[in-house]
Amino acid sequence: MRTRLNARLDHAAIATRDPAKLRHVLGLLGLTDSGSEDVPSQGVRTYFLKPAAATTQIEILDPIDPEGVIAKFLARKGSGIHHISFQVDGLDALCEELRANSVRLVYETPQVGAHHTRVNFIHPESTGGILIEIAEVLAQRT
Amino acid sequence: MRTRLNARLDHAAIATRDPAKLRHVLGLLGLTDSGSEDVPSQGVRTYFLKPAAATTQIEILDPIDPEGVIAKFLARKGSGIHHISFQVDGLDALCEELRANSVRLVYETPQVGAHHTRVNFIHPESTGGILIEIAEVLAQRT
Repeated sequence: MRTRLNARLDHAAIATRDPAKLRHVLGLLGLTDSGSEDVPSQGVRTYFLKPAAATTQIEILDPIDPEGVIAKFLARKGSGIHHISFQVDGLDALCEELRANSVRLVYETPQVGAHHTRVNFIHPESTGGILIEIAEVLAQRT
Repeated sequence: MRTRLNARLDHAAIATRDPAKLRHVLGLLGLTDSGSEDVPSQGVRTYFLKPAAATTQIEILDPIDPEGVIAKFLARKGSGIHHISFQVDGLDALCEELRANSVRLVYETPQVGAHHTRVNFIHPESTGGILIEIAEVLAQRT
């Protein structure tokens, strides 16, 4: 039994041209809005919203750079869900096993992500068209 | 405090032209595949996959009717996430409150959904472009 079998759905990330409208509706559903965090390297402002009774969150992606990946996604597909993210243990071993199963990954080696994580992505070519993030939480500094 | 504040993210529903590929990758991540269920009224075959350590599931939508809503979504947008679904208590009161806040719903009255639920949808016009299902579990028969 591998620890990666513990994969849990951490968040669904929604790219939208109207973040204010989406935040308003999710607030009516009772989600807690934790405010924004800019990720300049991705050209995006993010908002995380948490349902009261589950650990799976919603991440809203608001492009702040017209040349960034999220702006390009919106131009190509319109508002929609950009990726889903699983939190896993043993990211390196999982990446190795995925490659051994001919699954294409976006990065050669995992990159540092937001919120103290290391991340890679499974390429849409290997998933029937969906971008799937796999993330491992780094040990917190003491 | 309203019971609807208990809204939890029940599933993310992915429409794809290649369900086999997506099921394979999700299996590698350790999700449990509970097999298929056809919903002829929606022209779709559904698969539910459950992560081991969370209640939020993935639903795969595979069009079985070329004139159905999922086939039309795929033709318009390509593979991608079709909707996200929140489970709530007090669906009727919630629908009333959403309308009072000028939020547009898809159905005048909730419809019977799969898995013993009553469902309505928040229209993408009111969410910045995302289809959001709100579902209430019906009391199980004894």
